[in-house]
Amino acid sequence: MTSPRTRRLAVLASGRGTNFVALAEAAARGALGGDVVVLMTDQADCGAVREAHGRGIAVEVIDAPTHRARLGEAAELDAVARLRTHDVDTVLLAGFMRILSNLFLEAYPGRVLNLHPSLLPAFPGLDAIARAHRHGVRVTGCTVHLVSEGIDEGPILAQRAVTIGDDDALDAVEARVHAAEHALYPETVRAFLTRPFAIEGRRVRWLAPEGA
Amino acid sequence: MTSPRTRRLAVLASGRGTNFVALAEAAARGALGGDVVVLMTDQADCGAVREAHGRGIAVEVIDAPTHRARLGEAAELDAVARLRTHDVDTVLLAGFMRILSNLFLEAYPGRVLNLHPSLLPAFPGLDAIARAHRHGVRVTGCTVHLVSEGIDEGPILAQRAVTIGDDDALDAVEARVHAAEHALYPETVRAFLTRPFAIEGRRVRWLAPEGA
Repeated sequence: MTSPRTRRLAVLASGRGTNFVALAEAAARGALGGDVVVLMTDQADCGAVREAHGRGIAVEVIDAPTHRARLGEAAELDAVARLRTHDVDTVLLAGFMRILSNLFLEAYPGRVLNLHPSLLPAFPGLDAIARAHRHGVRVTGCTVHLVSEGIDEGPILAQRAVTIGDDDALDAVEARVHAAEHALYPETVRAFLTRPFAIEGRRVRWLAPEGA
Repeated sequence: MTSPRTRRLAVLASGRGTNFVALAEAAARGALGGDVVVLMTDQADCGAVREAHGRGIAVEVIDAPTHRARLGEAAELDAVARLRTHDVDTVLLAGFMRILSNLFLEAYPGRVLNLHPSLLPAFPGLDAIARAHRHGVRVTGCTVHLVSEGIDEGPILAQRAVTIGDDDALDAVEARVHAAEHALYPETVRAFLTRPFAIEGRRVRWLAPEGA
């Protein structure tokens, strides 16, 4: 018998990289169900790049037009080609600020995950925590979902609730949502890589209990 | 010194009346901050009517066209007139299946509350629990909000989260959301009646800690 092949994961990020760090640290202690082999970014000088360098993780910078929501066809094809050189089989979006088209998604069918800082379907899109706070919700949270071509759509793999208290300023809520993300994303990636599931309609059904 | 006037509450319901019962029982044990003095309904033979009769609470049946989302002008004016005969100052919607227009709402400005079985702004409108379940969310819940003319809009007074587990069928989720409602609605009514709050934008800020 051979042991199952170790999953090779790419993290795509554009910002500080705190979720990249949470994923990389979980992988380093064997808790992710795979290895983070490359950090890909559209922002050559973002925090995530520095975190990857500090951890000896490969970095790929995609050259894409700035100030656009999408990468564009050429950059997406380049991104897929570079992920293939790293033999990546699963793509984890973690604060990646570009919308991916089917050109990219069809290269990794059912293997692209995203983390969004709200309880989807509430507050899709940009600036979700601030919009939830302004809306006056008392419960928000974060969502890990499979990526489809719609924005922040796709079957939901996991969610975690965060309560907003009477006097919570935006920065307090942001800190709590980010803490929930840093716990939820690694454990959901591990489940995705290690537990069987079925998608019924758009509902994800995990077919074996955790740890089974 | 005189003690503050006891609030006189109307509950509007169209169904089984489980939230009406939760409110009436909280009032009976002095935990609601007011008295439930009348049950108003558009369904003369609904469970809520039987529950009101069993508790000696007055019942008012509004004669309104069936199979319409709205009561219509004549029935709304009649409803307001009847609530006035009961000297009602606050209106609690609890599974009332009609949309109220400004004609009604302006008779009780800022004094109409609604309970909705989702974490608004997700899943407004009918059939919210089933729609959340079908959508595959892993966190849903319930919301108590002030009623404005939009459907399930208005500033949010309180929310409570309910987790959906791997194998939860719809009826299990419904039971858990209803249990959350039965706790959340009475305690939120008590807060509304006894604690000062301000509305900033559409965000409710409670100005004194609970019990202060």
